[in-house]
Amino acid sequence: MMRECLENVRKSVPLVHNITNYVTVNDVANVILACGGSPIMSDEAEDVEDITSVCGGLNINIGTLHKTSIEGMFRAGRKAGELGHPILLDPVGAGASALRTDTALGLMKELKLTAIRGNISEIKTLAMGSGTTKGVDADVADAVTEETLDEAVEFVKRFASTAGCIIAVTGAIDLVSDGEKCYVIRNGRPEMGKITGTGCQLSGMMAAYLTANPQDSLEAAAAAVCVMGLAGEIGWSRMQEGDGNSTYRNRIIDAIYNMTGNELEKGAVYELR
Amino acid sequence: MMRECLENVRKSVPLVHNITNYVTVNDVANVILACGGSPIMSDEAEDVEDITSVCGGLNINIGTLHKTSIEGMFRAGRKAGELGHPILLDPVGAGASALRTDTALGLMKELKLTAIRGNISEIKTLAMGSGTTKGVDADVADAVTEETLDEAVEFVKRFASTAGCIIAVTGAIDLVSDGEKCYVIRNGRPEMGKITGTGCQLSGMMAAYLTANPQDSLEAAAAAVCVMGLAGEIGWSRMQEGDGNSTYRNRIIDAIYNMTGNELEKGAVYELR
Amino acid sequence: MMRECLENVRKSVPLVHNITNYVTVNDVANVILACGGSPIMSDEAEDVEDITSVCGGLNINIGTLHKTSIEGMFRAGRKAGELGHPILLDPVGAGASALRTDTALGLMKELKLTAIRGNISEIKTLAMGSGTTKGVDADVADAVTEETLDEAVEFVKRFASTAGCIIAVTGAIDLVSDGEKCYVIRNGRPEMGKITGTGCQLSGMMAAYLTANPQDSLEAAAAAVCVMGLAGEIGWSRMQEGDGNSTYRNRIIDAIYNMTGNELEKGAVYELR
Repeated sequence: MMRECLENVRKSVPLVHNITNYVTVNDVANVILACGGSPIMSDEAEDVEDITSVCGGLNINIGTLHKTSIEGMFRAGRKAGELGHPILLDPVGAGASALRTDTALGLMKELKLTAIRGNISEIKTLAMGSGTTKGVDADVADAVTEETLDEAVEFVKRFASTAGCIIAVTGAIDLVSDGEKCYVIRNGRPEMGKITGTGCQLSGMMAAYLTANPQDSLEAAAAAVCVMGLAGEIGWSRMQEGDGNSTYRNRIIDAIYNMTGNELEKGAVYELR
Repeated sequence: MMRECLENVRKSVPLVHNITNYVTVNDVANVILACGGSPIMSDEAEDVEDITSVCGGLNINIGTLHKTSIEGMFRAGRKAGELGHPILLDPVGAGASALRTDTALGLMKELKLTAIRGNISEIKTLAMGSGTTKGVDADVADAVTEETLDEAVEFVKRFASTAGCIIAVTGAIDLVSDGEKCYVIRNGRPEMGKITGTGCQLSGMMAAYLTANPQDSLEAAAAAVCVMGLAGEIGWSRMQEGDGNSTYRNRIIDAIYNMTGNELEKGAVYELR
Repeated sequence: MMRECLENVRKSVPLVHNITNYVTVNDVANVILACGGSPIMSDEAEDVEDITSVCGGLNINIGTLHKTSIEGMFRAGRKAGELGHPILLDPVGAGASALRTDTALGLMKELKLTAIRGNISEIKTLAMGSGTTKGVDADVADAVTEETLDEAVEFVKRFASTAGCIIAVTGAIDLVSDGEKCYVIRNGRPEMGKITGTGCQLSGMMAAYLTANPQDSLEAAAAAVCVMGLAGEIGWSRMQEGDGNSTYRNRIIDAIYNMTGNELEKGAVYELR
């Protein structure tokens, strides 16, 4: 199944419209190309509807919000909704500022999101802010570890169910749920956190996977998470003495570029709960 | 001749003002440095006239248009025109949105452009929109291949003539014409399309070449196209197992950095029509 | 002392708020991660106060000024001042445009800056514009060389004293002064100037060093300069045939990532005047 998700991206070359932050945008574009998609970036409110109309999916990332691009996010999202395109939201920094939290919650409320991908802290912020959690849920730990796994799976499932979209929480252990099933993924390496934007890169790739696999959104989202983690492992295995986070960034993108369906099937480490 | 164009850039270190998109801007800056120029970026309307005044040439790229930077493009372009600086336009995404098409056509109409560089689809959009093509011209194929070469050369020559500036169409085969002569260039590799922004990088480098070679604009533009394609070939020859598009990006810029006039003369593959 | 400054960054993982240009922002983020800090980028006026409040230090870089982000710089700077956070200003292009010069001078006037880092031309512009130099000072040469060193040290000391903050002038020889002492640093390589943004990268890292070493600001600023220069030397020693400025960029960031306190103590080349 993951193999097919990967191969569908390479076969269909999904065109992904990205409204994303200027910190990691170049890497996001190169990752989308590496996995087999094609990226277009546009955030100007007067430009986004035309651009989203020629694309197949939309990736919204609030990493460096501007008042003007917020309008672009809503306009693009509404148009993508009309066209039935998958929409992914990456709520970067939700919880760190009111503007980010409010914008993410507003996008959740107004748009037909297909998936939200963030770290546990960002996802908790959205769960609490949107009133979709109660009691015990809000107490989920701030890191997903073997010790906190059970409650985290429960939290993610419940939030996915009430939010009505796929929730992907990435960290030491990654969780991807549609409210019924939850992928628990153990690919990746801690050193990926020393590269800026591996999360943004994953969101861009996940948008491409969702676009190319409209009938299997949950599997597509999980496959993208496995590709990113596995690329982190393969990239690390190619590191040489003296290499650091800049070379590691290149090696991860290179590994995504070269990854085959076979490699993914063999390397993906996950269980379904 | 191409050797001299390259060497003039290294000798004169042209200062190029770039109003460009935030996706590929870092690579554009490093490519301009690699070829021997010096880049400055500024798009704020209140800043651009001062900046363009201390530069020798202007590179306008509409890849991520903002309403505010559009005003900057016009202001910088008018100032550059007054100062006699070469101006290059890269109409990224013309045809994909009304804002991009209209902006590119407006810049063509109002500014004294020295060159326009884009893919065949973008260039066709401008040719049709500016009313400079009729009948058969508009029917030129959407890719420049050996089969469509004759008509494409004819189209590019005619558009360059009516537009009054150099037209560079890049793709599998590259065409660079001033309306009378047309360079047909066969350097490069298809894998360059898997790196974001090789077109933007070429536009930045071409602006540096035009600035350093004011008496030989056509040859300078063609030389920049050959340098980019040849760097794509040299970079590819240095790829090792496991390398992908991220490493390839680095190797191409490295090859531009190290390219000599001799290497260019020997490696450039072109004919004049 | 420099060893401790480096180790304090790795131990405390300072969170640095960056309002910086879109050209070099990705490299700035990766350098801050490489040295042991953690970067957040935000320039929207309505977002910056919240973001700066969760950080420990602020890095303001005017490399691609926008009218809207200027307001963000002032708001973030005032908030950082209230919170007692170190603030670094990188006055990119001061002297090249009125908007840049005026903005840098305005920030100097209104904010409690901890340090300003720029090239000699930018720093001279600020010294003259802020009325803190008189007579001979304004005549300091446009490059810091062995020949001009004495007067440059004198100039930097005096400007630091009147400006009331650390002044770091980087170039062939680097000077870092608090008005009383002046570090004269001879690390680095000229080829670093062929990479876009090594200055911006240093400013980001210096902000992390200042944040992690509040009791030793001068030493922290000087240590950051030595780390950058030494990384330039180490990175260069790893260059292979065919490598150019793009690979060099990666190797420098890699060297920062791997640098130890011991390596810094051994490799730093400086004298105190």
